[in-house]
Amino acid sequence: MPRTHLFPPDRVHYVWNNALPPVLEIDPGDTVIYELRDVTDNQITPASTAEDLTRLDWSRIYPLAGPLLVKGAQPGDVLEVEIVDLHPKGWGWTGIIPGYGLLAEEFEQPYLKIWDLSPGDHTFFREDIRIPLDPFCGTMGVAPREPGEHPVMPPGPFGGNMDIRHLTRGSRLFLPVQVEGALFSVGDAHAAQGDGEICVTAIEAPMYAVLRFYLHKGRSIEEPQFLCPKPLTAKYDEKGYYATTGIAPDLMVAAKKAVRYMIDHISQTYRMSREEAYILASVVVDLKISEVVDKPNWIVTAYLPLSIFR
Amino acid sequence: MPRTHLFPPDRVHYVWNNALPPVLEIDPGDTVIYELRDVTDNQITPASTAEDLTRLDWSRIYPLAGPLLVKGAQPGDVLEVEIVDLHPKGWGWTGIIPGYGLLAEEFEQPYLKIWDLSPGDHTFFREDIRIPLDPFCGTMGVAPREPGEHPVMPPGPFGGNMDIRHLTRGSRLFLPVQVEGALFSVGDAHAAQGDGEICVTAIEAPMYAVLRFYLHKGRSIEEPQFLCPKPLTAKYDEKGYYATTGIAPDLMVAAKKAVRYMIDHISQTYRMSREEAYILASVVVDLKISEVVDKPNWIVTAYLPLSIFR
Repeated sequence: MPRTHLFPPDRVHYVWNNALPPVLEIDPGDTVIYELRDVTDNQITPASTAEDLTRLDWSRIYPLAGPLLVKGAQPGDVLEVEIVDLHPKGWGWTGIIPGYGLLAEEFEQPYLKIWDLSPGDHTFFREDIRIPLDPFCGTMGVAPREPGEHPVMPPGPFGGNMDIRHLTRGSRLFLPVQVEGALFSVGDAHAAQGDGEICVTAIEAPMYAVLRFYLHKGRSIEEPQFLCPKPLTAKYDEKGYYATTGIAPDLMVAAKKAVRYMIDHISQTYRMSREEAYILASVVVDLKISEVVDKPNWIVTAYLPLSIFR
Repeated sequence: MPRTHLFPPDRVHYVWNNALPPVLEIDPGDTVIYELRDVTDNQITPASTAEDLTRLDWSRIYPLAGPLLVKGAQPGDVLEVEIVDLHPKGWGWTGIIPGYGLLAEEFEQPYLKIWDLSPGDHTFFREDIRIPLDPFCGTMGVAPREPGEHPVMPPGPFGGNMDIRHLTRGSRLFLPVQVEGALFSVGDAHAAQGDGEICVTAIEAPMYAVLRFYLHKGRSIEEPQFLCPKPLTAKYDEKGYYATTGIAPDLMVAAKKAVRYMIDHISQTYRMSREEAYILASVVVDLKISEVVDKPNWIVTAYLPLSIFR
């Protein structure tokens, strides 16, 4: 009979390390309830200012709830994580952190936006800009195969900090098990984010989460895969999109151009600062690779959902 | 009073060159009806075989209907192209062309798929795989500022071969005018394609097209932008998506990994050859940049729409 477990909310770790002892052991088919902290481990609060982003203790960034041992999991298996439920807990933040983000060289000053998420399913950027929430966990992974400590920021074949916005409620994530017991951890919950996580932060939010775990023997994958059983952007689609292209022989350069043009477009059309436009883009703008074959120039396009504007 | 013009179907050009004399002159607000050839200028027909792809006369690739002179257009203006109507003409093809495509090093043999598009709004990859058509023109651009001949394959600030799948009926493309009269050309019509155009060909199809042109004075943009007034993937969304991630410190490497895993997934799950899976991916799989900020590793994700499988 599958069981439901409460993950102890006081147990987090800040680096990947397959030698960390498991906090909880479950059987495949079991469900786990989490109370997830925000990515700064409560260093940012609704009372914080932008300057607080320059004083972060980085040893406490990415508090991950884990490790969770899944009995019977062996390297070469696939761990399936069903995202059963997610709900943000009333507030969130988005920030420009000096040295990070796609346009770090152009946005050198800290900036902090605090969001009121109390409506539960939407928030307002300002009174005429309403953003539907579409929560997901930015970081879900199994312990890496390689021994020792590994920082959480870069994702890897084990998953981790993937920041994939479509891993919302109802999705199923498939992770390649690296070590015995899988040793799954989760954190970095986001209430909304565009494909790309442009400025390096989404709507970062403390989150209630429920995950269910399954084990697939003899199904080997090299890197994470997932199933989204519903339309991906139904909450944002209604009025269509405005798009800016970036054309260049390098995808990163193309992405930066598309985002720069989008920030120009947003700040001019909707009368806001470039910092505000950068924040808004990180939360709602999607980056797509339009073509990657018309050598030598590729195109990355940034898509702004028009339904957010009232 | 705006007028509607028929573009002479026998007038095409195969390189960008701002010295080419205009075939037709219109006023802003006018509409133009086109009969577009396929990208090979009729070298591929429903009777062709894969070997024909190795014998293409590349001087006849990308026949563009143009140039079209828009009266009053000056460098620094924006030409708006409204995609009024599009309809494929009964058949199309998708090919693996040696030396081209995202995975050119892995797919070295020519491969040709001929599509029956006679239903008008859908086609079958095989009897259990039904693909909705979502036509657009792969190439729309104004004459480049730089004098001389320029190949059509690479897109540029003038637009051109952008292969942006969302420029479907009802969309509006904004192009930065480079030379007096704009000198717009169009071709390379596609009946369906995923974001990325993975194997370098979409469903290449002769197409009926209607475009309307507007001129914006004093609105300057550096590279093309566009408006899509409707949900982007409504024809494909219903059953959700299966996704493969590619994780790497380079976006191109990440894109190749995601596509390689997707080809593995398609060929194994739906029992087809890797060539067939590559073709199918080019036609329906979308590439998104999931994150481009979690240094040093970025994620490109390939999304397969599940509604095509019956």
